[in-house]
Parts: sequence; structure tokens; C-alpha cells
Amino acid sequence: MTQTLRVTYELTPDRDEDPEAKARDICYEQTVELPRHAVPPEVADWVPGEIESIEALDDKRWVAVIGFDASLCADELTQTLNLIFGNISLKRGVRITAIDWPDSLVASLGGPGLGIDGWRELTGVRHRAVTATALKPMGLTAQQLAERAAAFALGGLDIIKDDHGLSDQRHAPFTERLARCRDAVGDRSLYLPNITAPWPTMMARARDAREAGCSAVLVCPMLTGLDAPRWLSDELGLAVMAHPSLSGAYLQRTHGMAPELMLGDVFRLAGADAVIYPNTGGRFGLRPDECTAINDRLRGSEPPCRPAMPTPAGGMALDEAGVWAQRYGPDTILLLGGALYETGHIENAARRLTKAIEDAA
Amino acid sequence: MTQTLRVTYELTPDRDEDPEAKARDICYEQTVELPRHAVPPEVADWVPGEIESIEALDDKRWVAVIGFDASLCADELTQTLNLIFGNISLKRGVRITAIDWPDSLVASLGGPGLGIDGWRELTGVRHRAVTATALKPMGLTAQQLAERAAAFALGGLDIIKDDHGLSDQRHAPFTERLARCRDAVGDRSLYLPNITAPWPTMMARARDAREAGCSAVLVCPMLTGLDAPRWLSDELGLAVMAHPSLSGAYLQRTHGMAPELMLGDVFRLAGADAVIYPNTGGRFGLRPDECTAINDRLRGSEPPCRPAMPTPAGGMALDEAGVWAQRYGPDTILLLGGALYETGHIENAARRLTKAIEDAA
Repeated sequence: MTQTLRVTYELTPDRDEDPEAKARDICYEQTVELPRHAVPPEVADWVPGEIESIEALDDKRWVAVIGFDASLCADELTQTLNLIFGNISLKRGVRITAIDWPDSLVASLGGPGLGIDGWRELTGVRHRAVTATALKPMGLTAQQLAERAAAFALGGLDIIKDDHGLSDQRHAPFTERLARCRDAVGDRSLYLPNITAPWPTMMARARDAREAGCSAVLVCPMLTGLDAPRWLSDELGLAVMAHPSLSGAYLQRTHGMAPELMLGDVFRLAGADAVIYPNTGGRFGLRPDECTAINDRLRGSEPPCRPAMPTPAGGMALDEAGVWAQRYGPDTILLLGGALYETGHIENAARRLTKAIEDAA
Repeated sequence: MTQTLRVTYELTPDRDEDPEAKARDICYEQTVELPRHAVPPEVADWVPGEIESIEALDDKRWVAVIGFDASLCADELTQTLNLIFGNISLKRGVRITAIDWPDSLVASLGGPGLGIDGWRELTGVRHRAVTATALKPMGLTAQQLAERAAAFALGGLDIIKDDHGLSDQRHAPFTERLARCRDAVGDRSLYLPNITAPWPTMMARARDAREAGCSAVLVCPMLTGLDAPRWLSDELGLAVMAHPSLSGAYLQRTHGMAPELMLGDVFRLAGADAVIYPNTGGRFGLRPDECTAINDRLRGSEPPCRPAMPTPAGGMALDEAGVWAQRYGPDTILLLGGALYETGHIENAARRLTKAIEDAA
């Protein structure tokens, strides 16, 4: 039996654009890519998307629910994204606000390999939020970064990840950085090297990371190809923390995808065990309700696969970490970077963060 | 000697936002990701981006030229994009309008493996624009698609590519489609199977395509990972036509990247030998000057690598194909799909297109 991939589009038509025509255009543009009269009859009744409902939201926006035959996704995340937003990404005023994922599609895509339980297993943290920080800045040597890693580990942080900008620059080449930082952290904390690179290079770095004793890695799926987390999990059993670099262009107010779908559903289905997102009130512009929605989509029963750890980041103050831990609950990785560095003594700052999160549990 | 990657950002600050502070934020957010006072002195003088100039463009927009040390790109396209737009993709009102690529970076990224000369070699077309069409719609069987391919080939088209939505759906599985369409086209035309898929699957399909005798393939780099074209070229010697699926979110008016940089420079540096873009006047919204700019960036001496074939598509009428061929010149692949199908006799339509392009040369 064929299942339906049901997508809710919020449409903001141009002044001379008819909302129903805009919805019909999505049905055809995203599937047959032909004018209606040129579609062969044996295809016309099941391939084009079907408008299940359309109604005005206010005087500028409309909401259309469009159903696609899920078999058109071919059980591939690449083709799934292509189907729901590929060509229409090039148009305007089309924003996906809800996706109803068929079980069969979710089952074939897979989702997180380890998920929330995996992080608890790897960190040994049971009943509180997990603490994390980033090694930076770019420009330091591998040795300097390793010294910072050691201090964070002594301060009790659970996860110490590379900054996502550290790749294989000559001041701190990947291989040397991996060896030194892994060594500096030891078994006190989890060290997550950033393995973002063109895919084959990324896989080679992932193998190096595993051989060096790392159980988890950081990757930017929008740069490597979205399926990277799942492959890293399936092939190497690594836990994957995903960074949202370059994803922001999809998070527009009238075009793209709601943040909880892009950084929630899509990243989770891509196999991310944890997803970093810019927390509200920090250096980026997400609203509190959007952050809560991301948390919900990463942890919840929809899509039906393992839950992933929300990882709010991006400008939280050290004094407020406990408040965030209470607000977001224990199934959260709290990622603080700048707030620790600017104290001037990162080991002490890490200790304060650790205590604040323990107290908040 | 260190070279500079010089990026021009058009800034549209929020009402309460200072344009210079917004430019400085880019310098730090994209590199050290730390507040200025927390940046170690040995890093502070070369890692943060440097504002080379900033001036008002009109009462809402500012133009800032920011220089980055090119070594921060680590000779990787992934890290290059991360550096110029990774985190700030998550902010607003930042649009890249020019990039000055250092020779050393371009040399290490590589660019097209075959480029314009490659297409001329493969198609045998010397002094006119190259003609192309797409096999569709999704939903037909492999046999039906192959019959269409045969008709297009008889009609004299140079290139017959899969629609980018054809992946491995059960109605026309990849392997069967490849065999039947390759067989139907024979040596009359080039058949480009769409191999878009998660990277390892994509590479397997590329090998199958080469074994079946295909010299070129279609891929959607935003879905597979941007480096796909270069890898397909380096590993397998395939010519790569890149499709812009999912790239549209970056082409906003006040945020993202100018179309000629995203679909021109970035796709070309990723190794695409041809880049499909939505032609002006068709179903999508690019302006004539934007299309000309894409052509120029794909063919020109900047960035300094092999030129690629612009491939305008998306709703050109059959009667106007000759006009487009004259306007865009011989170093162009003209891609018409719907216009051929809706005539009801695709072989004749292909013949008309062939003649129109020959007459226009």
C-alpha cells in the first residue's frame, strides 16, 4: 500500500499571483515538471502532488497541505528533499511549516544510530543536561588547542568539540590536532573532532578518529552532504553531532523551512544524534518558541525514529546556564564557548558550568 | 606568501543595527567565533577577517569588503563556504555580491575537469550552441522513458539527460533506466543519467554509468555534497552537469549569495562542467542581467580555472530557442523540456529545435 508524504506549505503569493495556482504549481513543478496537458494519463493520477486543503491564513499568506506519493522519495533523503523543496527553492514565498512523515519512509531513512541513550552511555551522564564546549579559536596550534582541551576536561565538561571551522589548516593540521586533543582529554570527557570535509576525506578522518579512540565526531551536513551522519553511524558506529553551518538560508520568514523542520526533522532523519542550533537570546535570531519546537522535533515521537539531543549554543552567558538547563530539561546538551573563554580562566569557568548544571538537575 | 580571499558583502542592517558593527561581526563570527577581547594576541592579528572598506549603497544597504587569510580555507571547498557564509547564514541581511578568488585556492579546488572543450569533444558540436532535453515525467517506466530518449536522439538533440527527480523509484529503477536509455540513445546523442543520491550510492551509480558507456552524468550538488562534481571527474573522468535543486534558498534579495556566485563561481569551483540555471522569462524569477552574469562567471577568466557551460533551462518556448542561442552565444547548452513534450510529437519537436539552433549559429 502506498503511503503519503504530507507537506504543509505556507504561501506568500506575489500581488499578481493566485494562491491556488501557486499551490498547483508546487504539485507539478516538484514532480512531473510538465504543464498539466503534457502529463501522460497513466502518470497524471498519482505522480503530481495533490492539494488536500488550502485556506487563507491572513491577508497575505495561505496554507496549503499537499500530499505526495511517498514512493517518489525512492527511500533516499536526497530525493526526499528534492521532492519537497528542490525546484521551488528557486521560487519565492514558499515555506514548509509541517511535514507528516510516513513510517515506511522514516524506517528506510533510519534516523539517529545512537540518539539520546547513546550520549548518556558515552558520557555516563544520567539525570542532568550534558555540558559541552568548543575548542577555538582557529589560528591556534594543535598544541595550544590541546592545552585548552585539557583544561576543559579538568573542569569537568562532558563534551569537548572542535570548533566547526577547524578543518586541516596548516597551523593545526587534522591528524596532529586529533592526536594531541584526544590525548589531552583522555577518558575524562568525550573529544569530538570536526571531520567536515569533502565526503571521502571526511570518511578518512572519521576512521582516523575512531582509531584514535574517539566515539563521536562533529560534522556540518550542509557542507558534506546531508547523509553524512547516517553513513558515519552505519559504517563506523560513531555518534554524530551536527552543526548548522550554511543551513540558515533555508530559515527565512517567507521562504524555506521552519527551523524545527530543517534543524529538527531533516537533521534527525539524516542521522544526527545531536543537533547544534543557535539558542534564542544569543547572537542569532531564533525565537523562544522556535527553539522549543526544535527541541520537541528532535526528541519527540515524530518522526518515528530514535530521539536526538538538542544542543542549544551561540552566546549563552555562564550565569544563565542553569536557567537554560532547567528550562530545556535533562535531555539537552548545553554548548557554551565564548562565555567560558572570556573569563580568562577556562578550567575554573568549566567547573562553574559543571556545578551550575548539576545544581539545576 | 599568504593570499587574501576578498569577499564583498551587501549588508541590510536592521533598524537598530550599526552597519560597521555588522561587518565586524562577520569578521569575528566567521573565524575566531569569540568576542574580540577573548581572542589570543597571536591570533588576533591575522585570523579575524579584515574590513578593507565599507560604504553606504543607499539608505538601507551598505557594502563591506572583507579580506580573509586564504589559508583558513585549508584548500577545501567545504571550509571555504563555511568561512565565507557558514554561521552568518543563520543571521539576516548579509548577501555576498563579489568574491575575489586567490589563484592558489582556485588551483587547489580545481574547477571543471573537462569544461567547455570537453562538451565539444563529447558532442562533436563545434560552432553552435549545444541542444539538450530532459527525460520525464517521473512515474513513467524505464521502457517508456527509453522510448522518449530514442525519439529525442532521432530528432538530433546533442544531450538527453534524466530529469533530476528520477533517482531509483520502483517504476523506473536506476539500473534498468540506465541500461534502457543508454541503449535507446546509442551514439547519436549523449545520455546523462541522474546519479544524485547519498554520496556512496552516487559513486556506485557513476561507476555503473561509466561501465554502461556514459561519458557524462547529471548531479544535484546541493543534495549530494558540493564536492561531488570534482570527485566524479577526478575518479572517473566523467563530465558533470550540475542541477541547482535546493540552491534557491541562497538566492535571496537581501541574504545569501548573488546567483552568479552561487551557480557560477561556487558550482564551477566544485567542478561542474555545465551548470543548469533557471533562465529569465521562464517559470523562475532570475533577471536578464543575472543570467548574463551567470554565463560570464561560468565562462570567464575569473575564477582562474577551466570554463564551464552555462545551461539555461526552465520554460523556454520552442519558437524562441534560436533567439536565446543568438543572445547567449555558442558556448551555451540550451535545455528545453516541457516545450518539446507539449507539442505531442517529441521527435519532430527535437528536429525543430535542432534546426533552429543550427540556423542561429
